Amino acid sequence: MTTPAAPTLRADGRRPDELREVRFTRGWLDSAEGSVLVEFGGTRVLCAASFTEGVPRWRKGSGEGWVTAEYAMLPRATSTRSDRESVRGRIGGRTHEISRLIGRSLRAVVDVKALGENTVVLDCDVLQADGGTRTAAITGAYVALADAVAWAKRTGVVPAGRTVLRDSVAAVSVGIVDGTPVLDLPYVEDVRAETDMNVVVTGSGAFVEVQGTAEQTPFDRAELDRLLDLAVQGTDRLARLQSEALADGAP
Amino acid sequence: MTTPAAPTLRADGRRPDELREVRFTRGWLDSAEGSVLVEFGGTRVLCAASFTEGVPRWRKGSGEGWVTAEYAMLPRATSTRSDRESVRGRIGGRTHEISRLIGRSLRAVVDVKALGENTVVLDCDVLQADGGTRTAAITGAYVALADAVAWAKRTGVVPAGRTVLRDSVAAVSVGIVDGTPVLDLPYVEDVRAETDMNVVVTGSGAFVEVQGTAEQTPFDRAELDRLLDLAVQGTDRLARLQSEALADGAP
Amino acid sequence: MTTPAAPTLRADGRRPDELREVRFTRGWLDSAEGSVLVEFGGTRVLCAASFTEGVPRWRKGSGEGWVTAEYAMLPRATSTRSDRESVRGRIGGRTHEISRLIGRSLRAVVDVKALGENTVVLDCDVLQADGGTRTAAITGAYVALADAVAWAKRTGVVPAGRTVLRDSVAAVSVGIVDGTPVLDLPYVEDVRAETDMNVVVTGSGAFVEVQGTAEQTPFDRAELDRLLDLAVQGTDRLARLQSEALADGAP
Amino acid sequence: MTTPAAPTLRADGRRPDELREVRFTRGWLDSAEGSVLVEFGGTRVLCAASFTEGVPRWRKGSGEGWVTAEYAMLPRATSTRSDRESVRGRIGGRTHEISRLIGRSLRAVVDVKALGENTVVLDCDVLQADGGTRTAAITGAYVALADAVAWAKRTGVVPAGRTVLRDSVAAVSVGIVDGTPVLDLPYVEDVRAETDMNVVVTGSGAFVEVQGTAEQTPFDRAELDRLLDLAVQGTDRLARLQSEALADGAP
Amino acid sequence: MTTPAAPTLRADGRRPDELREVRFTRGWLDSAEGSVLVEFGGTRVLCAASFTEGVPRWRKGSGEGWVTAEYAMLPRATSTRSDRESVRGRIGGRTHEISRLIGRSLRAVVDVKALGENTVVLDCDVLQADGGTRTAAITGAYVALADAVAWAKRTGVVPAGRTVLRDSVAAVSVGIVDGTPVLDLPYVEDVRAETDMNVVVTGSGAFVEVQGTAEQTPFDRAELDRLLDLAVQGTDRLARLQSEALADGAP
Amino acid sequence: MTTPAAPTLRADGRRPDELREVRFTRGWLDSAEGSVLVEFGGTRVLCAASFTEGVPRWRKGSGEGWVTAEYAMLPRATSTRSDRESVRGRIGGRTHEISRLIGRSLRAVVDVKALGENTVVLDCDVLQADGGTRTAAITGAYVALADAVAWAKRTGVVPAGRTVLRDSVAAVSVGIVDGTPVLDLPYVEDVRAETDMNVVVTGSGAFVEVQGTAEQTPFDRAELDRLLDLAVQGTDRLARLQSEALADGAP
Repeated sequence: MTTPAAPTLRADGRRPDELREVRFTRGWLDSAEGSVLVEFGGTRVLCAASFTEGVPRWRKGSGEGWVTAEYAMLPRATSTRSDRESVRGRIGGRTHEISRLIGRSLRAVVDVKALGENTVVLDCDVLQADGGTRTAAITGAYVALADAVAWAKRTGVVPAGRTVLRDSVAAVSVGIVDGTPVLDLPYVEDVRAETDMNVVVTGSGAFVEVQGTAEQTPFDRAELDRLLDLAVQGTDRLARLQSEALADGAP
Repeated sequence: MTTPAAPTLRADGRRPDELREVRFTRGWLDSAEGSVLVEFGGTRVLCAASFTEGVPRWRKGSGEGWVTAEYAMLPRATSTRSDRESVRGRIGGRTHEISRLIGRSLRAVVDVKALGENTVVLDCDVLQADGGTRTAAITGAYVALADAVAWAKRTGVVPAGRTVLRDSVAAVSVGIVDGTPVLDLPYVEDVRAETDMNVVVTGSGAFVEVQGTAEQTPFDRAELDRLLDLAVQGTDRLARLQSEALADGAP
Repeated sequence: MTTPAAPTLRADGRRPDELREVRFTRGWLDSAEGSVLVEFGGTRVLCAASFTEGVPRWRKGSGEGWVTAEYAMLPRATSTRSDRESVRGRIGGRTHEISRLIGRSLRAVVDVKALGENTVVLDCDVLQADGGTRTAAITGAYVALADAVAWAKRTGVVPAGRTVLRDSVAAVSVGIVDGTPVLDLPYVEDVRAETDMNVVVTGSGAFVEVQGTAEQTPFDRAELDRLLDLAVQGTDRLARLQSEALADGAP
Repeated sequence: MTTPAAPTLRADGRRPDELREVRFTRGWLDSAEGSVLVEFGGTRVLCAASFTEGVPRWRKGSGEGWVTAEYAMLPRATSTRSDRESVRGRIGGRTHEISRLIGRSLRAVVDVKALGENTVVLDCDVLQADGGTRTAAITGAYVALADAVAWAKRTGVVPAGRTVLRDSVAAVSVGIVDGTPVLDLPYVEDVRAETDMNVVVTGSGAFVEVQGTAEQTPFDRAELDRLLDLAVQGTDRLARLQSEALADGAP
Repeated sequence: MTTPAAPTLRADGRRPDELREVRFTRGWLDSAEGSVLVEFGGTRVLCAASFTEGVPRWRKGSGEGWVTAEYAMLPRATSTRSDRESVRGRIGGRTHEISRLIGRSLRAVVDVKALGENTVVLDCDVLQADGGTRTAAITGAYVALADAVAWAKRTGVVPAGRTVLRDSVAAVSVGIVDGTPVLDLPYVEDVRAETDMNVVVTGSGAFVEVQGTAEQTPFDRAELDRLLDLAVQGTDRLARLQSEALADGAP
Repeated sequence: MTTPAAPTLRADGRRPDELREVRFTRGWLDSAEGSVLVEFGGTRVLCAASFTEGVPRWRKGSGEGWVTAEYAMLPRATSTRSDRESVRGRIGGRTHEISRLIGRSLRAVVDVKALGENTVVLDCDVLQADGGTRTAAITGAYVALADAVAWAKRTGVVPAGRTVLRDSVAAVSVGIVDGTPVLDLPYVEDVRAETDMNVVVTGSGAFVEVQGTAEQTPFDRAELDRLLDLAVQGTDRLARLQSEALADGAP
């Protein structure tokens, strides 16, 4: 992340391998067991972790907990207003898809046995969208989840000694814009990208999810490899930022 | 509002006729034509005004504009999580009712002729709820609307000389708690109130909406009068705060 | 109601403070525990009270009963046909709002402890609409409710000695039309009213609900006071008519 | 219908081939182009005919009109309350099926060319149900349709000389109860019937629809023939009653 | 079916009283308890019988089983594509009506006592539609049901000695095309038919359901009789084909 | 694909890098512009391509065509029956996600300019599911699309000389089962896989979509590389099979 002589290529002055400014504001909500306002540049997502005792019916008696997520966007999060999904009476495909992705990503680092028969629901509401909302949501949701788990241990709902979170998890977008692989795309780059990839990686560097899409131009193995390198660089940095944010103790 | 010797009656240390701390953060969203994060104590509502040219089909050719509102609450705005209305597939009665109230309240001060065939949609999303979400929404939405109208004049969509807003509008809750009429109820008072009233008043002191409800004990005319007095005191103060917030020019 | 020399002001020949002809036809349905066809002039609402043992899940074990209401309008109740809400697949905001209002109004006079763990659902279906459908619905629903409670006592579901209804309840609309406050507005006045208010009052004269709206012109305190006076005059008269209607014993 | 010595077989004292008391109250609604409250004993259906100029998009330019129907039941039309379809958010299969049947039955006697590009919607709302609601609805809807067509001719929307209705149409239920074929079944017979048949017949005696169902015991050709004989006897009588009801001129 | 010198009247070369080629492919699905791909000429319906232990809540403890059906059509089963009902979010009236018809038809030959508290759901999905989809569905569903019942006896879920199916059941369409009664109408005849009738008949020749509709021209008793004769001829032949198809033992 | 001495590892006798038997039955539907029943072992998907002139409103006047897809599963495609999405009234997240994936995959090889303002909808209905339904759907849908494009050229809707399809596209699943990377997973392997990946590749070997998920154990870069190698081997083989299937000319 220190390629000295690289020409400044991007509209916002960043180097290709540079993240936007990332901020975590923990404890944004007074009553949620965990809550974080996460910002990736202009993208702002409010992640609330609701911890409840008990699990859905199909999981009862298993001794295992459950972690799930719901993603949504406020109507004016985007530059032009979209209709509310509650008004339309149905959730769109994109919303469903991202909610499922966030849930899977978090479950990959949760020891459901250690969690016990408890449920954590992560609500990720995009207040302002400037690209990378799903990756910001995953990255912020992990921090909210960590706070909710800490809350559960403090209050004794989960025995203090247990390791519920086996690892941390973060996500970032990468893409090829005008032939150059770039990290953490804002909206203006996102719409021009030939290839778009979202990568979810654990704190220890293992892949949880790799989703690469080439609606415009199919990509080759070399490009795929370069994008994966860039992504891992980004999630490494995000893992450090998450760790720093959580270092302060209870919010 | 300076009754020196009054016994401090309320849990949060306020006098019966005192508002919670009210804050308006204008320009909270980068791209909305008007946006305000309004706070009444712990209640936080993000109000976004979306200004678009054109009107709904049934109003075309009338030469008049349209102002409408949608109210919603994030699932974890409250102390326990509620299901999303988008997931349930239908909007609840309370949501509908409040959305309609906000729209009517704003239209009461808008000169739709002066607005011309343009539409402003006010999205009021409750990020955190601690009582009085509808009154905070109306009060904040007016500020967002004022910014959107100013934007329309700056950009020439509406001729600069026109007076689109005939007056300002604000709202506050009042109620009788343990026999005492109180102003601007937080959640803990709201649930204990025998009578609950929401009052919407213009900057010049005229009523736009009066909604008083007594699910527990019907109230008499004297109580009604005292509540109305208290409410008008509150909305006067809110009108001044709105005016100060808007004094800074464009956000 | 005895202003002798007042000029006849209204299209249908009524004085400003005069109700339309009000009729209650009890026992309109053969099998409902209580049922009333209520008419306020051309407005006709069929109110059916369904009494069932047991309460909704969230109220079980409380020892308290539950009273709720559903309001709806037949498609051709109005002068032009409206789409059915069942066909559109969702209930509109106005329908929800009125259903909730009717329920709250009735609960204000019900002693839920005395009712015991029983539920009464009031279905108020507007067969013909000529203004004031919600106030007619509340006024008629009270009579149907009284019949259902009497049925429950006759059949022993509720012990005969208990006072389930602490008071009666009735509702009326008032409004300012061409500068004059008028009582019980038919449709032609309703659409021209500058201010529109619905007031729900108990038999003993206490307010249950006050809903005043000024979409066109905000109103001042003096107008509000005059409207309240007029409304109370109307609900007093309605309370007497309810009482007379119920004097006949079982329908 | 004059079998003198026949043993009185039915619970309500009717002979097997006797209709219940049938009543048509025309002009039940003030503003509908045609409206009839039809009663077959305790079954009461409000039939409203809404005449509008123009046809659905798929029929535009054809020179032909359209006639359609919607059937529904109030929640307390039956002896125990049913949920509203508007609240459930979807129309049940039975409702759909009957709406379609009524529409088809009426279209069978309408000359859509003579109707011109106009639409008539028949709303058939069951206020009280005691068996045979769909047959009462068809029989009443025809009368409401006739009134709406007369209205259209009076007002000149349809040229006065045209014959829009080629014939009348009526419907009746027949069934086998305890081995005996009976006409026009009330609810208590309906639930015990081994075979249930609804027959729609024109004034001139031709079949429009024959729907026979044997959920319990399949039936043979002889039984089918006897049921058809009985049905035609009933619809003949209904056609005469319709004709008498319409003889009075405009309602 | 042996009218030697009859003029070949129909577009596909069939005599008026001739069925299209009928084929049953049993065991089309690997895991369903019973499954048949039934073909009536170009009409192809996949019928799957799902046998599960237990009954719906309202039938629990009755000792009786339950048989129900769901009919649906793939979007491109027809010559032009239709929207999916899942995408539209609601099931159309026609779909509901046919699902209910199939369920009733099968229940007419099932001894629910002998079935015990078990449920069989018949899914009839039209893969290609060329007229007569509902009659093919009933005819095929019976074969799938027979296989599911045989499976239940083989596996001991239902005691081997019991007679669950009291009879077989099949269905066919008949209609009057250009004045001639014809059997088993393909799409091209169906759209031109003056009268359309679907008849469901047991293997022993009793009627389960008779549904005759005359949207264009009402029909008289003589026509009705000829259509019924033709239909019974068709269902007799179908009953034999069902029996031959089932003669092979387990699929 | 001919590693002679490899130990036979899989339940169905396949080598790790071996596809199941793949079959394309073109022209399965009589009237669709393109249709294929594709089978990957026990997985059977009916792919129907509906070609219509014109494009959705938002694309009008662009000179470009549109290709989209809808995926669905019959209720008894799986070993236990699932509820229909049409009956539930909403489409699940998984269905949405796969429909979108199929659409994107096909658009990646379509020259929408060459297609002109025409639309092709690909309906992929899973008749029987044994793992890999989405990859079979993509692979089959390409063949149906190719047939629909050929139809459009034959009939002159698209000028014969244009190259609408720039390449072919196929998809396959790969996963790690018991530590071994395997190709084209049937259901029994799918549920046991630690990592599951779906890869969509063009005929010339470029990636269109890479979706790797590790709900159980995050995977490292080396595993990812091995899975990608295996996938490309599989899609190469599928591209050849598609090409052979299409070699026969019109179905």
